[in-house]
Amino acid sequence: MSRTPVDVPVALLGYGTVGSAVHRLLEDGAEDIERATGHRLRVVRALVRDLERERAHAPEPGVLTDDFSDIAADSEIGLVAEVMGGLEPTRAHVLDLLRKGVPVVTANKQLVARSGPELHAAAVEGGVQLRFEASVCAAIPVIKLLRESLVVTNVHRVLGIVNGTTNFMLGEMEAGSSYAGALAEAQRLGYAEADPTEDVSGLDAAAKMAILATVAFGSQVRLEQVEVAGIDAVRDEHVAAARALDMRVKLVGEAVLVDGRVGVRVAPAFVDVHHPLASVEGAFNAVMLQGDAIREIMLEGPGAGGIETASAVVADMVSVLGASGAGFLREDPVWRALDALPAGELPSPHYLRVEVEDRAGVLARLAQELANEGVSVARLVQQQGDGLAVLHVVTHEAPAGRVHAALAAIRGLPESRGDASALPVVSSRGVEELGWA
Amino acid sequence: MSRTPVDVPVALLGYGTVGSAVHRLLEDGAEDIERATGHRLRVVRALVRDLERERAHAPEPGVLTDDFSDIAADSEIGLVAEVMGGLEPTRAHVLDLLRKGVPVVTANKQLVARSGPELHAAAVEGGVQLRFEASVCAAIPVIKLLRESLVVTNVHRVLGIVNGTTNFMLGEMEAGSSYAGALAEAQRLGYAEADPTEDVSGLDAAAKMAILATVAFGSQVRLEQVEVAGIDAVRDEHVAAARALDMRVKLVGEAVLVDGRVGVRVAPAFVDVHHPLASVEGAFNAVMLQGDAIREIMLEGPGAGGIETASAVVADMVSVLGASGAGFLREDPVWRALDALPAGELPSPHYLRVEVEDRAGVLARLAQELANEGVSVARLVQQQGDGLAVLHVVTHEAPAGRVHAALAAIRGLPESRGDASALPVVSSRGVEELGWA
Repeated sequence: MSRTPVDVPVALLGYGTVGSAVHRLLEDGAEDIERATGHRLRVVRALVRDLERERAHAPEPGVLTDDFSDIAADSEIGLVAEVMGGLEPTRAHVLDLLRKGVPVVTANKQLVARSGPELHAAAVEGGVQLRFEASVCAAIPVIKLLRESLVVTNVHRVLGIVNGTTNFMLGEMEAGSSYAGALAEAQRLGYAEADPTEDVSGLDAAAKMAILATVAFGSQVRLEQVEVAGIDAVRDEHVAAARALDMRVKLVGEAVLVDGRVGVRVAPAFVDVHHPLASVEGAFNAVMLQGDAIREIMLEGPGAGGIETASAVVADMVSVLGASGAGFLREDPVWRALDALPAGELPSPHYLRVEVEDRAGVLARLAQELANEGVSVARLVQQQGDGLAVLHVVTHEAPAGRVHAALAAIRGLPESRGDASALPVVSSRGVEELGWA
Repeated sequence: MSRTPVDVPVALLGYGTVGSAVHRLLEDGAEDIERATGHRLRVVRALVRDLERERAHAPEPGVLTDDFSDIAADSEIGLVAEVMGGLEPTRAHVLDLLRKGVPVVTANKQLVARSGPELHAAAVEGGVQLRFEASVCAAIPVIKLLRESLVVTNVHRVLGIVNGTTNFMLGEMEAGSSYAGALAEAQRLGYAEADPTEDVSGLDAAAKMAILATVAFGSQVRLEQVEVAGIDAVRDEHVAAARALDMRVKLVGEAVLVDGRVGVRVAPAFVDVHHPLASVEGAFNAVMLQGDAIREIMLEGPGAGGIETASAVVADMVSVLGASGAGFLREDPVWRALDALPAGELPSPHYLRVEVEDRAGVLARLAQELANEGVSVARLVQQQGDGLAVLHVVTHEAPAGRVHAALAAIRGLPESRGDASALPVVSSRGVEELGWA
C-alpha cells in the first residue's frame, strides 16, 4: 500500500459490540475522516461466525461473511480492523493479512501480549502498519503517544491503573463494602464478568502492562515475565491502614528500567493521595509515563466499553491513513533485547502490617529481621490493645524479594500472630513525609 | 516536500533555552528518530540576534546566523522549528517558509493564537504541515491527540488547568500563604516573571484556551473572544470556603459548544475534589477533553520548562516526518465558522459569597434577586456572628451573566456588606451532593 487511494475499502474481523460500533463511527464520522486524511473508509466486508444472528447496527446486504477467504482474497481491501477477539483463528488471520501487505488495527490485548513479535515481524515483512491502541485502556491514546510523541524521551518508568473493574471494587471497599459486596456490585453494573478471575487476579492488567512495557522500552516483554498479585489478597485492614496513612489501595501496574533491565509487576499497592494515580476513580484507567525530557505525563480516561474501544480502533485506522507507508511502524518496534529483572528485584517502598503479641523485645526482633534483609524502616506505628499489637511499617525503597524474605522471617517469630502482609507503596514524596492520622 | 529524503537538514529560528534544548535532543535522540521515522535530522542553521553571545550548547561553527535569508534561500532545508518567540519578525519568517513549502513546527503560543488563520492558509498554500504542540502545555500532547486520535469523537468540551504559575500560587494559598507571599515564592522558584501580569491576569491561559478551542471545534477562536478573569480576585475567604465545600480553587479554562456556538472562558473556579482537575498539583498542567465516544480523557504533565517544551517541538518534528505529505494537516484545520456564544452565556453552577447584616428577611431578599435572574439555589450555608452573616450559596447551572446580574442586585441591597463575589463551580457530581464541613 505505497499509495493509498482516496477511497479505502475496509474489512472488519468480527461484528459484535465493538465491531458494530466501529462501523457506526466510520459512517457517522466519514466527513471528519475525509477532512483529516483525504480518505473515505467504506466497510465492504465483516467476518462473523453466525450469519443469521440479529444485529443492532446491521451492515448492508452482502457485507457479512463467515468465510475469511472472502476478505483475504479481496485485493481491493486496504485496511482491516480485528475486533473478533480470541487467539485462534484470529492470529492466523492477522498474520495472513499483514504478510499480504494489508495494514491491520487490532483491539486484541491477549493476541498482542502473546504473539507480538510474530505480528510485528509479519508487518515488517508486508511493509505495512500494525496498530493496537485499543488493546490497552480503550480510548486512552497511550500507545500512539509512546510511539510517535515520546520517541526521544527515554521513558524509564510506566505506572498504570489499567483495570477498571478492580479500581471500581477497591473504591467500593474504601466506601465500606466487603470484598464480596464490591464484587457483586461490579457484576451488577456489568464491570465484572460472572467469572471475575481475569480481573481480580491481576492477569488482565498483566497483559496490558506487558504491552505497555514492550512499547515503552522497545524490548519484548512476555506475559510470563510479569510478577502478578491480584486484589483478592486485599483485606479491610489494608484499606483502613491506607486511609490512616493518607493513601489509597489501588491495583497498580509498574514497568521499570533498572540498570538496563526490565521489571514489570502488577500488585495492589498503597498510593499516596498526593500522587496523581490516587485520584483515579471508579472504573477509569490511567497511565503515567516518566521519562528524561518530560518528567511525567499522565493520561486518564475510560479503560473499557464498546464505543470507547471502537473510538480507539477508528483512531488507529485514521492514523494508518495519515502516516506515510509503514510510517512510525516502519521498523519492528521491538528493536532491542533487554534482560528481565530477576523476580523480586523490582524496588519500591513497602507497607508492612504485622500482628504480634505485645511483649517486650518484639519490636526489636522485627526490626532485626528487616535489617537482616537490608530493609530500612522509614516510619513505624504501633497500635496496642488486648495483649496484641499491630505494627504498621513503611520501609524505604527495597527490592520486593528482600521485603518478602523479611516478612517470612517475621511470620516465623514466636510472637507473630495473624497473617503478616506487605504491599508496595507508590508516592512522589519521600516516605518520611507521610503522616499517620 | 512530497518525498522526504533520508537525511533532513533542519533550521532553528532562535537558539535560546528551548532552541539549544531542541538541538541537544535531536543529537542525543538521532538514533531513536531514525529508527522511528527512517530520517536523520541535522541542524544546519540557527537564527539568532547576537552571534557573539556565549551559549551553553553551542552549535558547530557556521550554523549560527543573524540573517534569515541564509535559511529562507537554502532550498536543502526540509524542516524548520520556530523557537524564537515574539510576533514580528517571527510571523513574517514562518509565513515565508510555509508558503515556500517548508514544514514548520512552532512553540509560539501568542503567534498561533493571534495569527492562526493566516499561518494555516500559508501551510495549505505550501502544501506542508504546520505543527504547534509546544505552544500549549509544553510536553502534554493534547494538540496531536485532538487532531489525530479524536477525529470522529465530536469533542464538545475542553477543561484545562493550563497555567502552572497560578496553579502553584493557588496551592501555596491553600497551604496558608497570602496572595503576595504565594507570588513571591513563585518568583523565587522561577515560575513567575518579575512582571507576573500575563500569568495572574489569566491572559496566558486565555491564549492557550483559544488555541485548544480552535483545534477541538475546528472553528477559529480569537483571543478577544475569551472571557478572562485572573487569580488576583481570589481572596483568603474563597480558599477557606472552597475547603469547607470539599473543593479547591483553581484557575480553570473552559471551552464549550452550546447549541453549536463556542464559549471560551478563563476564571478562578471552585473544583470539586472528586473531579480529576482538582488533583493537579504545583506547576503542573492538565487538559480534560469530553466527547461523544470517549466520555472524557484527561492529560496531565509539566506545562512549561525548557526541556519539556523542546521535547514537544521534537515530537512535532518527528510527527512531520512520520506523516505523509501534509498528513493530518492536509486541509485547513479551521474547517467551519461557528458563532461565538455571547458574553455571559456560558453556563455552569456558581459559588456565591455574600456578607449581609443579620436582619430578618435578608435571606428572602437575596433569594428573590437570584430568582429574578432565573438562578436556582442548590445549597445555602449561613454563618452568623456579630450582627453580620456570611451567606455561601451554590447555584444550579446558570449562565454566568445571569449570576453576575443577580450579584449586582444583591450588592445593591441595603443589608449588603463587603464585596459579594461569584466563581464558577466545576464538578462531575450534581451540586446537591456537595457537603459543607
